[in-house]
Amino acid sequence: VTTTTLPASWVNGIAVPTDAPAVSVRDRGLTLGDGVFETMRVQGGRIFRRQRHLFRLQAALGELHFPPVPDLDRWLTEATAALGGGDGSIRLTVTRGIASGGWAPPTDARPTVIVIVGPMPAFPSEIYERGLTLRVAGDRRNEYARTATLKTIGYADSVLALIEAHQAGADDALFLDTAGHCSEATASNLFISRGDELITPPTSCGALPGITRRTIMEIGMTMGLRVVERALDTNDLIGADEAFLTSSLRGVAPVVRLQHNEIGNARPGALTTRLRAAYTALVARECGVGT
Amino acid sequence: VTTTTLPASWVNGIAVPTDAPAVSVRDRGLTLGDGVFETMRVQGGRIFRRQRHLFRLQAALGELHFPPVPDLDRWLTEATAALGGGDGSIRLTVTRGIASGGWAPPTDARPTVIVIVGPMPAFPSEIYERGLTLRVAGDRRNEYARTATLKTIGYADSVLALIEAHQAGADDALFLDTAGHCSEATASNLFISRGDELITPPTSCGALPGITRRTIMEIGMTMGLRVVERALDTNDLIGADEAFLTSSLRGVAPVVRLQHNEIGNARPGALTTRLRAAYTALVARECGVGT
Repeated sequence: VTTTTLPASWVNGIAVPTDAPAVSVRDRGLTLGDGVFETMRVQGGRIFRRQRHLFRLQAALGELHFPPVPDLDRWLTEATAALGGGDGSIRLTVTRGIASGGWAPPTDARPTVIVIVGPMPAFPSEIYERGLTLRVAGDRRNEYARTATLKTIGYADSVLALIEAHQAGADDALFLDTAGHCSEATASNLFISRGDELITPPTSCGALPGITRRTIMEIGMTMGLRVVERALDTNDLIGADEAFLTSSLRGVAPVVRLQHNEIGNARPGALTTRLRAAYTALVARECGVGT
Repeated sequence: VTTTTLPASWVNGIAVPTDAPAVSVRDRGLTLGDGVFETMRVQGGRIFRRQRHLFRLQAALGELHFPPVPDLDRWLTEATAALGGGDGSIRLTVTRGIASGGWAPPTDARPTVIVIVGPMPAFPSEIYERGLTLRVAGDRRNEYARTATLKTIGYADSVLALIEAHQAGADDALFLDTAGHCSEATASNLFISRGDELITPPTSCGALPGITRRTIMEIGMTMGLRVVERALDTNDLIGADEAFLTSSLRGVAPVVRLQHNEIGNARPGALTTRLRAAYTALVARECGVGT
């Protein structure tokens, strides 16, 4: 097994140094955020839910009227090989490519495909053992924008909310939608449990249709929970038995506090722990690790 | 006078080829839209309202908790020199620089400054002679997001709205805010006139505080118009005497139709024409052209 120095990066299938010049200053990803991306988890050399990620990406490209983007599957395979059968993360970004000024895409747009392979980030174990404190973001998610449910490049709102959450002593920010419903955290979906119900906000509240969100919903159903998408307000969150956030790399992260309000007994709950273990096992099983 | 081949580009003050690799794939401008920009008009080798653009950019960087970014003024001067005393456009972009994964900025973030100098775009004269038809965008501007009033990189919403406006036979899209008020077009501010009132939506409706918008408000006041920022709905627009859009490069562009609804007599109005002439004269005067 050859191991490549990580992170390793490719632009349109050509290897590039990760922190050296690689993309044009007129790439529309950089000038207008005109592109979408996926962040994927690799275990034992295989991408978890690879087809779902590719499907979601292609659907987003279609929604944004991109021309067809070939070879994504092949480039993912080559990138995954850089992990030499090990664990890691892959970010796949597709932008509308280089263009001169103006918002209207050129009729002959040639998308730029960027792949970055990195190690699996080391999340502090306290996240899982102690749980997260959320702060309500000062801004709102826009449930009236289709891009709210597409993983487009424009995450300045999330960056700002995360900075301000950290300044306020919280771990992450919870976005409400403009109607005041819980939407999602800066880069992850929200779940609460109450009795035998496992509830997550619908995408109509501006929440991204997360791959991990979907996986947890499936796991919840196999556990016999009543899994529902339903609008939640902050009182629902505070009054929940348990709460947690889901994302591809951090997985299932318990939420124990919304600002000064404790959720449940202010410790990671039993169901959250069970779902997290089931998720970890599912990832290993589907990636063929330990079989 | 030496003339540089346009477009000409610089990254952190270093000249780079415009359509060749110049920015890292891990630049947060490209990965997260974590940056802001200004588009400026140069006439006779001088940037119109240069200090206002720089002030707005610095204010946006402060709002987004960027570290101080030195040398912007110097780099603008060097970039302007590439136009050899002529006319053109400058795009100044500042991103939070290169970082590994995660939304939280590194504590030692070193912003990337990108300057692109190009010719003045040639807008078709029909825009001004015939006027624009607008289509109401399918999505809404988010007046609950501070980034709505900052010129951050994430313009995917606008790109999508513009594509769909063109597909529907319109010239540009008009965004409403989530409350249904008129906000702005995809890359320009909206004005209407009614009697002696010149009205533009307030920034609380998700409109960018445009430099050209401000300039037109000033011109309107010197003309003795009653200039007001007020929430407008689409009926106000349809019932207006005249309407137009403002932006740095296209200047004052008459709006004559909202979908199938004619505005005024469906031709560029007398006041719009007068404001456009006054704006053109002001740009020339402040840039010292013809004096």
